[in-house]
Amino acid sequence: MSSTVPIAGSNITAPTPQNTPLNHAPIATGLSRPTVPDITEDKEEDNDDDEDAAALHAQALAMVQGKLAGLIGRSSGYLESLPVEVKLSVEGLKGIQVKYQELQNQYKRECLELDKKYLALQKPLYERREAIINGSEKPTPEEIAAGEQQSQKDDEDYTPLAKDDKVPSAIPEFWLTALRNHIGLAEIITERDEAALKHLIDIRLSYLNGDEKEYENKPGFKITFVFSPNEFFENEILEKSYLYQDEVGYSGDFVYYKAIGTEIKWKEDKDLTKEYEIKKQRNKNTNRTRLVRKARPTESFFNFFNPPIPPSEEDLESGKYDEDELDDMEEKFQVDYQIGEDLKEKIIPRAIDYFTGKALEYEAMDEDEDDDYDDIDDEDDDGQFDDDSESEVELAPRRRGPPKGRGGAPANAANVNPEECKQQ
Amino acid sequence: MSSTVPIAGSNITAPTPQNTPLNHAPIATGLSRPTVPDITEDKEEDNDDDEDAAALHAQALAMVQGKLAGLIGRSSGYLESLPVEVKLSVEGLKGIQVKYQELQNQYKRECLELDKKYLALQKPLYERREAIINGSEKPTPEEIAAGEQQSQKDDEDYTPLAKDDKVPSAIPEFWLTALRNHIGLAEIITERDEAALKHLIDIRLSYLNGDEKEYENKPGFKITFVFSPNEFFENEILEKSYLYQDEVGYSGDFVYYKAIGTEIKWKEDKDLTKEYEIKKQRNKNTNRTRLVRKARPTESFFNFFNPPIPPSEEDLESGKYDEDELDDMEEKFQVDYQIGEDLKEKIIPRAIDYFTGKALEYEAMDEDEDDDYDDIDDEDDDGQFDDDSESEVELAPRRRGPPKGRGGAPANAANVNPEECKQQ
Repeated sequence: MSSTVPIAGSNITAPTPQNTPLNHAPIATGLSRPTVPDITEDKEEDNDDDEDAAALHAQALAMVQGKLAGLIGRSSGYLESLPVEVKLSVEGLKGIQVKYQELQNQYKRECLELDKKYLALQKPLYERREAIINGSEKPTPEEIAAGEQQSQKDDEDYTPLAKDDKVPSAIPEFWLTALRNHIGLAEIITERDEAALKHLIDIRLSYLNGDEKEYENKPGFKITFVFSPNEFFENEILEKSYLYQDEVGYSGDFVYYKAIGTEIKWKEDKDLTKEYEIKKQRNKNTNRTRLVRKARPTESFFNFFNPPIPPSEEDLESGKYDEDELDDMEEKFQVDYQIGEDLKEKIIPRAIDYFTGKALEYEAMDEDEDDDYDDIDDEDDDGQFDDDSESEVELAPRRRGPPKGRGGAPANAANVNPEECKQQ
Repeated sequence: MSSTVPIAGSNITAPTPQNTPLNHAPIATGLSRPTVPDITEDKEEDNDDDEDAAALHAQALAMVQGKLAGLIGRSSGYLESLPVEVKLSVEGLKGIQVKYQELQNQYKRECLELDKKYLALQKPLYERREAIINGSEKPTPEEIAAGEQQSQKDDEDYTPLAKDDKVPSAIPEFWLTALRNHIGLAEIITERDEAALKHLIDIRLSYLNGDEKEYENKPGFKITFVFSPNEFFENEILEKSYLYQDEVGYSGDFVYYKAIGTEIKWKEDKDLTKEYEIKKQRNKNTNRTRLVRKARPTESFFNFFNPPIPPSEEDLESGKYDEDELDDMEEKFQVDYQIGEDLKEKIIPRAIDYFTGKALEYEAMDEDEDDDYDDIDDEDDDGQFDDDSESEVELAPRRRGPPKGRGGAPANAANVNPEECKQQ
């Protein structure tokens, strides 16, 4: 909280090469993105002992095999037809692949260590940011100059502030404003939530050590929300932890295991995750009426601290949930993990850009963002086989970014030139 | 080429914890995925001096601002309305963010070093693989045992091979088969290409040092295709290099700069990227006809070594290309970078699984894959604003994986249980 971070003006004006053409295309696969299997898929696998499901499964499989055989030009009997001598070598390669997977596990652990190392390097910057936001420290003239230089890069019409004798002050509602500028979070923060989120004074990232009993000794990360004393709840800190499975998945990425949230100690009648209904009741004997208050769950940002619980394997096997329920759960997990990931990767690292709205410009250009939050009606057209396989364009990836003509520039960041930002 | 990699059987049978529930959701953002801006977007930015375009731009911007203001609950005048004292602190935070971005650049460089370190650790495995595929070395009984153990994990009905006195032999057409099992590559490999790709004997990954003049001193990576002597071209090696820009982009990832491919020295009449048409020509004077052969470009895998060239900034500014042409270019870049990325991240690391088809099962479960290769007709529905914002599910990410009932199991890998593979 007390460290100061002098910003050397000379560093920032250092010229960077401008030989970066405007025009390239994005890549969607990530090296270190955690992944996880699909509930409904797994359910079907689990139901294989159920005869109907097995029959359906076999039928579907035959269809897929037919389609793939046509697509990939190798009949499904190709492997089986190889002579034993060749098959032995194939098994040998599979054995080597096991070794590869062990290395990959080791690699991801080292990546995590590197992430931890850089989090430690970033910490003084985060602490300085917190102190300036809360007004306990003032930005230095050098920091302000570096910021204004960046503002001018982003917007050539930017007018430097008249400093005079003005003393920099705290930034009220910084985190509420930043969170509301994240498209996903904006949708779950209700008007009622805002009064509580005005007390949010910092959001911090930390990594799990992999040896903490309360986190089942899993690797993962934790988001800590720090609040000033408020009328809504007793907690000063609300935490949300995301746990990974011990082993990396097939694709070489960590796989999510589960999320854990702090139980919120709501003050009386202040639970924002509940709505109260007043109902009239009539006493059958006395015939007198009375008013009864009933609580029911309602939408709120604070449900984030009560994450969905993965169904048990037994419940999945017994078919306790129908497909719609499983789809619903899957969506909830996706949203919950995505918000955690965005807090870790985007909002905590670039909070100032969410506060000003600058980050939104890049959101609009971010393919992933589009794909993560898609039209609900759009569920049926995501087959992996192209309907239009005879088209000139052999592979037509989804078009990125906002539709033509929108320009991609959001409120508060109208004249930012994204190319210039790259040079910072 | 001569290193042997004994696989310790005891390592593979070591029990791994089974407390990994089936049901979680995927995350789409990646830490180290290179990104790049959008041609059409940039073109619009560049055209701002053109009056018509500017008017259109302003109009579109107003629309977006209105939509965003409604969505995010802050009018676009919010920042401007802050007192100077607060604005000074905001500029201070921007100054701190510049420092953060410098750290991020450093971080990505270290990630790249870590990738290089692990590539060196993987190299003996890759060399051993190559030797077994080409038959110059035989897999050890331990390697075969480890492979068969994995096969049994993947498919409980797997029957161990009868070894008897059989001597393991080379695996013919290994790489052609592997490439044809990648959905994207299967679409660009023509029947004519197959005869040449039968001579493909290895695919290797290396990293650019960032100080090679032929690669403009850029960081990046190179895919090397090694061929046995063949009737099609003189080259023994075909290379495709992907160059990154020097600075990481706004999101903290490397940004693609361009791709460079080896010029193929085709033997006479063997150019697979050309099709020859025979045309009759009549001599106006003599009235005699003759046959003339005309070459025209045709689809071929080998066009991969002649990557699209980014349009110059001047051509973009002068409006040389219309929007359809720019869309077309953008698609070509996307396909080209995506295939490079898949070779680096998936096919080279897990070639045996592409050969057997096992990798396809995971492709089907891979959200990115679905999103990368989407229906061509689907271009208009990728708006980032949900049509159904009053729905119960506040954020409904795209449903992953194959449609229900398909089961997700591909040819050649029918009974693989994805959960078991995770434990390897």
